[in-house]
Amino acid sequence: MALYVMKFGGSSVGDTERMKRVAKRIAEKQDEGHQCVVVVSAMGDTTDDLIDQARLLNEEPPTRELDMLMTNGEQISIAMLSIALHAIGRKAVSYTGWQAGFRTESVFGKARITDIRPDKVKKALDEGHIVVVAGFQGMTEDFEITTFGRGGSDTTAVALAAAIEADVCEIYTDVDGIYSTDPRVVKVARKLQEISYDEMLELANLGAAVLHPRAVEYAKHHQVRLVVRSSFNYNEGTVVKEEANMEQGVVVSGIAFDKNVARISILGVSHIPGVLAKVFGSLAKAQIDVDIIVQSGVTDGKADFSFTVALTDRERAIQVIEGIREDLPFSEVNFEDNLVKISIVGAGMVSHPGVAAQMFEVISQQGVNIKMVSTSEIKVSCVIDNNKLQEVVAALHTAYNLDTQEQAFVGGPQDRR
Amino acid sequence: MALYVMKFGGSSVGDTERMKRVAKRIAEKQDEGHQCVVVVSAMGDTTDDLIDQARLLNEEPPTRELDMLMTNGEQISIAMLSIALHAIGRKAVSYTGWQAGFRTESVFGKARITDIRPDKVKKALDEGHIVVVAGFQGMTEDFEITTFGRGGSDTTAVALAAAIEADVCEIYTDVDGIYSTDPRVVKVARKLQEISYDEMLELANLGAAVLHPRAVEYAKHHQVRLVVRSSFNYNEGTVVKEEANMEQGVVVSGIAFDKNVARISILGVSHIPGVLAKVFGSLAKAQIDVDIIVQSGVTDGKADFSFTVALTDRERAIQVIEGIREDLPFSEVNFEDNLVKISIVGAGMVSHPGVAAQMFEVISQQGVNIKMVSTSEIKVSCVIDNNKLQEVVAALHTAYNLDTQEQAFVGGPQDRR
Repeated sequence: MALYVMKFGGSSVGDTERMKRVAKRIAEKQDEGHQCVVVVSAMGDTTDDLIDQARLLNEEPPTRELDMLMTNGEQISIAMLSIALHAIGRKAVSYTGWQAGFRTESVFGKARITDIRPDKVKKALDEGHIVVVAGFQGMTEDFEITTFGRGGSDTTAVALAAAIEADVCEIYTDVDGIYSTDPRVVKVARKLQEISYDEMLELANLGAAVLHPRAVEYAKHHQVRLVVRSSFNYNEGTVVKEEANMEQGVVVSGIAFDKNVARISILGVSHIPGVLAKVFGSLAKAQIDVDIIVQSGVTDGKADFSFTVALTDRERAIQVIEGIREDLPFSEVNFEDNLVKISIVGAGMVSHPGVAAQMFEVISQQGVNIKMVSTSEIKVSCVIDNNKLQEVVAALHTAYNLDTQEQAFVGGPQDRR
Repeated sequence: MALYVMKFGGSSVGDTERMKRVAKRIAEKQDEGHQCVVVVSAMGDTTDDLIDQARLLNEEPPTRELDMLMTNGEQISIAMLSIALHAIGRKAVSYTGWQAGFRTESVFGKARITDIRPDKVKKALDEGHIVVVAGFQGMTEDFEITTFGRGGSDTTAVALAAAIEADVCEIYTDVDGIYSTDPRVVKVARKLQEISYDEMLELANLGAAVLHPRAVEYAKHHQVRLVVRSSFNYNEGTVVKEEANMEQGVVVSGIAFDKNVARISILGVSHIPGVLAKVFGSLAKAQIDVDIIVQSGVTDGKADFSFTVALTDRERAIQVIEGIREDLPFSEVNFEDNLVKISIVGAGMVSHPGVAAQMFEVISQQGVNIKMVSTSEIKVSCVIDNNKLQEVVAALHTAYNLDTQEQAFVGGPQDRR
């Protein structure tokens, strides 16, 4: 007998039919002799619908009241799932985030967990219940209801798994597991049996949005064994754990790409340190995340430097820079869209020199210029024009021996059983 | 400056436009210099919609999970109303039932309030907030979410008014106040300026469904000054308080009628006491409420007796009685539908003998037979055929000097301001 935390996302419980399917899936797990704690998100578009309605009343709803509003999405889900479990003869009990013991800091819309007191959850498990917990939400010490921000249900599942010392935390989603790259772009993408927390963290942050980065961080910190698998079939998923078994000759585990990227360049800059501080200080103040930063050599005491921001932040970033132009000694600011950032990720890179060089070589063989580069211990990212994305990713995928002959399963509601 | 509790029902906050209107109404009260605590029900049909969806999963959802589900209706309402208040520049904060301090017994679907700890409510008021509280819900000492049953939002408003020592508890609804009888049946129905708790209690229990009986009981017990008024206009409502000022010569305050009534008769009964106990014990076990009970004289050691049940319970009641027939010495059971129970209510009755006699006389003048009678200190009820309902009510209304010349306002969303 093992203790499972099973997390189902909004699309897995999108309507009553899917809710029934999830209930059946949980019952099967219980029939195998396991204890089950289930974390669910709001059904389908419930959260967005609630926010849309609130906007009819107030274009900028206060975050405290938005949290009061949004948490109903999960509370409806848990009650419905528990009701569905009762319908097939299971003892089940649903708990809101605060009932399950989630305490958070006093920040609305993106609270961090400060403590988990899962007494009710443990007691209900001991009594033979399936425990259904609302994802994404908690309560401050002052009894205020808070949310963790988007993707927070993953964090609920992982944190609860750590708190109750679950054997496994299964994240059920609409894909089969973690792939070496997006199977919609590269048909021969390989489903990974295992991946390390660090690799997963890089992939999560790079926009391969299967798992929320905070959840992965939490899992790494508390050494929670994660499994990512599909809620629509019974295929084995991908295990996320501390040290993934290196397959022979595999230094790169995955290739991620991000089209939400724009380059901004500031030209003819003197007094570079002061300018950098001012520019990035102002951008940070405007809540604009900067990713890659590249500085060219200095000529005549002047230099150019470039950085990337999310495409969706580009216009605002330019405004911020123009806004501080008078205080700054630079001659010009320009930008470039239609870019993509391609990243190779692999824990094996550290011990295999030349991985980055190989990446540059493969990209240049495709006749593509590399515009910006950034590296970390387990990641190399290159920014290129986005018109050759597919060819470049496919070529890298082959070069790093990631191609598989099996057909990838891209997801969707095809219950194979 | 006074402290107001204002309660708005589901139809008053049925959509975002009505929500805005309610927000405006509250702001006006605040602008008059008052402190406001607002209790709201779920928006429009939200509760029924949630239950309908749950029934798709489970024909008999467990009551605990139904409470988890239904309470979202009010939690959505309070967040929306608070968001609407912020939109017009008001400091507002919403609290669920448990946040507002409502503690209940551990019964789902119809919990009674055991304690109210309104610390958060008082603190927020002191800070200048409008406090918006979810009706109909509370929490057990064991942190389980409970509901008070249908109409429970009235109880929330009254109980909270008592706990925070509010000056007035206003119940905003879709009618102008308490009428001497249903203005849809009698055009000359009179809106009462005042009514006593006891009279209101009788009217509430008789199906004049403006106020929930439990709320009236609570108000009487804690001497909460209630005002029933319309959320769609600014007319003065009806004050419900301990001793209503008797108007000159008015002994009957209101006439109520209930069409949801059926008569069941058991004929040829011997050993009457044993039979009565068995019949009404079995009916109570089946959760069937019995109202009027009448027993005829005894002939040859045998008697007939009759009682009324809700029309909707009639079929089940007959089944219950047939089910115990073999144990009982009676010769026949029959029933009658198409009935109505008409009741006159008035605190002045006690000191005015002959009120009941006058009622019987008026009814017989209409050529109508009285089938059953029941009396209390401030009420006389008669069961008659329902085909002369309108004439009988109108005749009684005139006989007891209740007619007014003013046109009654029957309600509906016609904001007169």
